[in-house]
Amino acid sequence: MENLKQFLFALSAAGAVGFVAIIFVLRWVFYFKEGLDWNGGLAEFNWHPVLVVTGFIFLQGTAIIVYRLPWTWQCSKLMMKFIHAGLNLTAFIFAVIAMVAVFDFHNAAKIPNMYSLHSWLGLMAIILYGLQLVLGVGLYLIPVTPVAWRAAFMPIHVYSGLFLFTSIIAVALMGITEKLIFGLANPKYKDSPPEAIFVNVLGLLLVVFGALILWIATRASWKRPSDQIAHSLHTNRGSEDNSKGETKP
Amino acid sequence: MENLKQFLFALSAAGAVGFVAIIFVLRWVFYFKEGLDWNGGLAEFNWHPVLVVTGFIFLQGTAIIVYRLPWTWQCSKLMMKFIHAGLNLTAFIFAVIAMVAVFDFHNAAKIPNMYSLHSWLGLMAIILYGLQLVLGVGLYLIPVTPVAWRAAFMPIHVYSGLFLFTSIIAVALMGITEKLIFGLANPKYKDSPPEAIFVNVLGLLLVVFGALILWIATRASWKRPSDQIAHSLHTNRGSEDNSKGETKP
Repeated sequence: MENLKQFLFALSAAGAVGFVAIIFVLRWVFYFKEGLDWNGGLAEFNWHPVLVVTGFIFLQGTAIIVYRLPWTWQCSKLMMKFIHAGLNLTAFIFAVIAMVAVFDFHNAAKIPNMYSLHSWLGLMAIILYGLQLVLGVGLYLIPVTPVAWRAAFMPIHVYSGLFLFTSIIAVALMGITEKLIFGLANPKYKDSPPEAIFVNVLGLLLVVFGALILWIATRASWKRPSDQIAHSLHTNRGSEDNSKGETKP
Repeated sequence: MENLKQFLFALSAAGAVGFVAIIFVLRWVFYFKEGLDWNGGLAEFNWHPVLVVTGFIFLQGTAIIVYRLPWTWQCSKLMMKFIHAGLNLTAFIFAVIAMVAVFDFHNAAKIPNMYSLHSWLGLMAIILYGLQLVLGVGLYLIPVTPVAWRAAFMPIHVYSGLFLFTSIIAVALMGITEKLIFGLANPKYKDSPPEAIFVNVLGLLLVVFGALILWIATRASWKRPSDQIAHSLHTNRGSEDNSKGETKP
């Protein structure tokens, strides 16, 4: 792999930042908040940030860059596709449980559902992520799908995947904003109590994690070699005879 | 240009959605809010969303895709660089005034500054955007900068530009969330008054605008022809002899 040291640095940084973000969200709910439970109360709500950060963000980020790991290049592409799909499926399940926790909590506390921009975008993200998963399996794991379809949809699959990942981090930042405004009473969010600073830092960690995953995923020279050759042929064709020439974003 | 119809469709959609978003933010401040003024009150605060949507989002989005417009391909690259830099500089000025409006309003109303995740990320975005502007001018508009440096920094310039654009939309969504929570009292945000629904839709428009700009910017076949050839040579070199081979994200 070209620039192996840079790759390993970016990968270690992403792993470290993601790991610290998980520690932060756990400390948030256990030290500053009510811990975790499934009782319709605030401790049930707390599953929401925990499952979003660990599953919908960390696991999804891992799924996105799993093809880039050089020590997996000796494994078959099919096996890597199963790992990619499996991680995304797990992330999706985490996200659905995270959503159920909030609906349960809202219903028990008689708080309306689905009024905020956070809830609108979050629900859309889960639905589109589920659709991306179904289409991804249908196109790239079911053996009968024509190779031409696979190639034609790949730019859309890659773009949608990265766009959803980015959107989900944005939705998480909106969720942090809501929770700090509603959850901090005395002192309030604007008085910057320790919890406010701590959770703002969690937000920063999520942004840095996202930036690193997007950087790793969009470096053409860090692709699995077989994908790199396909990409190169593709790009050449595009610029030489003006036929289909897409680059993965 | 390959897939010209698709390009024109994506471009028209981005233009239309961006234009509607500007109409929405103006209707928000003039119909639902206190209008615009520079008096330290809420009408001064209102410059904040108006300047962010029109400048920091719409003008920046335009700056990003300005090289993709086929009817500019007969213009010199230098002229296009000036237009790209000029639009970004204007967006930066809009963003700075937008920030000043909020500080002024906070100081007059004795509301603390810089306590929220929105303010942290927003300030970072403005600083990094200014840095991107200075580095961009230094690298790509000052004639003495070595060509090798220009090529080496291009992947970073492109990645940073798209990452900042995306981050700024995310920060705007957090800002909408804050403003709807703090600005709606009776009925509250959770009771979904017309203003809440209207501004949530504005948030959706910003996401769709961002998605369209990112799609247009990341299609290799829609690049200015001279850039496409440079990109193709670059990618080939990367996959054939394992030297530098980056793809713009």
